[in-house]
Amino acid sequence: MAQRAQSREADAALAAARELPEVLGPVAGDLERVGARYAEILSVTSDRVREVVSQAARFGGKRLRPALTCLASRLVAGSVSDDVATVAAVVELIHTATLVHDDIIDGAVVRRTVATLNARFGDQLAVLGGDVLFSKAYRAAAHLQDPFASRYLSDVVGEILEGEIHQDLVTRNAGLAEAEYRTIIRGKTAALYEAALVVGAYYAGASVALREALGRYGHHLGMAFQMVDDRLDLTGDEATVGKTLGRDLSEGKTTLPLILWREAQTGAARVEALRLLEAAWDDVASAKRLALRLDGEGALAAADALARRELDLAREALAQVPAGPDRDLLRTLPDYVLLRTR
Amino acid sequence: MAQRAQSREADAALAAARELPEVLGPVAGDLERVGARYAEILSVTSDRVREVVSQAARFGGKRLRPALTCLASRLVAGSVSDDVATVAAVVELIHTATLVHDDIIDGAVVRRTVATLNARFGDQLAVLGGDVLFSKAYRAAAHLQDPFASRYLSDVVGEILEGEIHQDLVTRNAGLAEAEYRTIIRGKTAALYEAALVVGAYYAGASVALREALGRYGHHLGMAFQMVDDRLDLTGDEATVGKTLGRDLSEGKTTLPLILWREAQTGAARVEALRLLEAAWDDVASAKRLALRLDGEGALAAADALARRELDLAREALAQVPAGPDRDLLRTLPDYVLLRTR
Repeated sequence: MAQRAQSREADAALAAARELPEVLGPVAGDLERVGARYAEILSVTSDRVREVVSQAARFGGKRLRPALTCLASRLVAGSVSDDVATVAAVVELIHTATLVHDDIIDGAVVRRTVATLNARFGDQLAVLGGDVLFSKAYRAAAHLQDPFASRYLSDVVGEILEGEIHQDLVTRNAGLAEAEYRTIIRGKTAALYEAALVVGAYYAGASVALREALGRYGHHLGMAFQMVDDRLDLTGDEATVGKTLGRDLSEGKTTLPLILWREAQTGAARVEALRLLEAAWDDVASAKRLALRLDGEGALAAADALARRELDLAREALAQVPAGPDRDLLRTLPDYVLLRTR
Repeated sequence: MAQRAQSREADAALAAARELPEVLGPVAGDLERVGARYAEILSVTSDRVREVVSQAARFGGKRLRPALTCLASRLVAGSVSDDVATVAAVVELIHTATLVHDDIIDGAVVRRTVATLNARFGDQLAVLGGDVLFSKAYRAAAHLQDPFASRYLSDVVGEILEGEIHQDLVTRNAGLAEAEYRTIIRGKTAALYEAALVVGAYYAGASVALREALGRYGHHLGMAFQMVDDRLDLTGDEATVGKTLGRDLSEGKTTLPLILWREAQTGAARVEALRLLEAAWDDVASAKRLALRLDGEGALAAADALARRELDLAREALAQVPAGPDRDLLRTLPDYVLLRTR
């Protein structure tokens, strides 16, 4: 009986870790304010253009980045000021803009359960729609009294884009090294996670040391988030994840589990591994077979171990952060990242 | 003999008006400094990314916008400061970024005599490359001491994009009204011409009245520039213009000469005009035939008259600007705009 109760409790903890909206309950009110700012920032004069922009701009998804901005601010100042709500909205807007352009690149037709901009209006308007989101984000940042967000976030956007361009340039490179993979995900994902916390801390008046500690937490959380994202492509339930298993692989993306699996082989097996990786490009069936093999040979577990290491580093950074319920919440996010299924 | 000499003189004036680089001789030194700033602003950390960005970022073309920024500054302050060189480079960078994304949308393979980013690296990298140019432009503006450029130019980019989105949404609308055509070209072209002068004047310390007069000049010059650009699509030598005659028309763009021609018809002829316009879409041969007919029926001349009216308004705005060689140069630019063949 006791054992069953304990197991039920563990299941509940697991479910909670999987459900981000529940975890973020304490910042729900702040996120509503951020959502209102987001809508204000996106206002356009022309009716015709409004339709395109509003399709691009649904404030939904996980809302993890603006939640991190709010949490950083609460940790520092105990609350979320108007400036912090603005930078949180700007961070989410930058994220959404990159998604709009990614969806064109990937030919995706559904995002956050609704039609992508390219699916509804075509690639041409999706390019311009993403540009509008970027311009609105920069505009909102430029109107803050303190130019920190404007300067820092334009650097971060550059870093995200360099990461994405880098990733595109190493497509179909089965020999990609782990270090280069880390450089790519640092740019395309971790940079904005770090930025989400840094701008929240900055506009709440944090010391440089506290801002840097929170930024470090964000960096490692973002690295782990992308590692788990890449692992989910090779595992998990297709219906839950909402995309085709092995899709990254079949598109020629060499991600962490593939790198670790390839590196675990020696001699002739290494040559055979490279051959199998290359065979998986453009061939979804081969990609799926390889994904199953990676699971069986422990490569997914090895990748998860590296993600867990990033999450440990994220938690370590929190040692320099004032204790309290907001820090506790930041401590629980790694569980969500590791256990999430989509 | 006297008559022949006079004619030779007129030919020389015509040639000069056609050759923008000669007209802009007096600001050649300033433009070199702007070019150096442009290259600095675009520096990237990764070797791989540098190749993509440098393809996107050739500082060439007409360089009319940064020349206008320098001229505005010279008119106000007699010289071009480092801040003015920076905003001139930012204006050109914004222009180049919009061209990179336009080339994807239009499927263009050559721009400024070299391969477009999409032709060389594919659409995916061209989307990201254009995004990088925008991010570098915003970053440079954000690093100026005075936030004017950062705030004003992010608004202008929004205006450009709204104009382009608007244009895209009225594709294949043979009944497009002149007022709506003007709204579109105001956004997609005239807004940045106006901005080029406004930021030059502002960072040179101009009074609000002088800044607004120069901005008005830029607005009308830009309106005329786009009107002539749209007319060149329907006339001129294909080899000189460097694109296919009637291309806008065959792509479903309803431009000023078409609108004026359609409006000149009455009754059954109006219905027939709409039918001919629609027949020209997706059919280059019909588009070419219609272009020749528009010329014969005076629609091109009518469009030129409206462009000339804009140029008169541009010159009128100069009445409020201090006299001198820089104002004289601004006075000659309308001749170039009207007489240019490409």
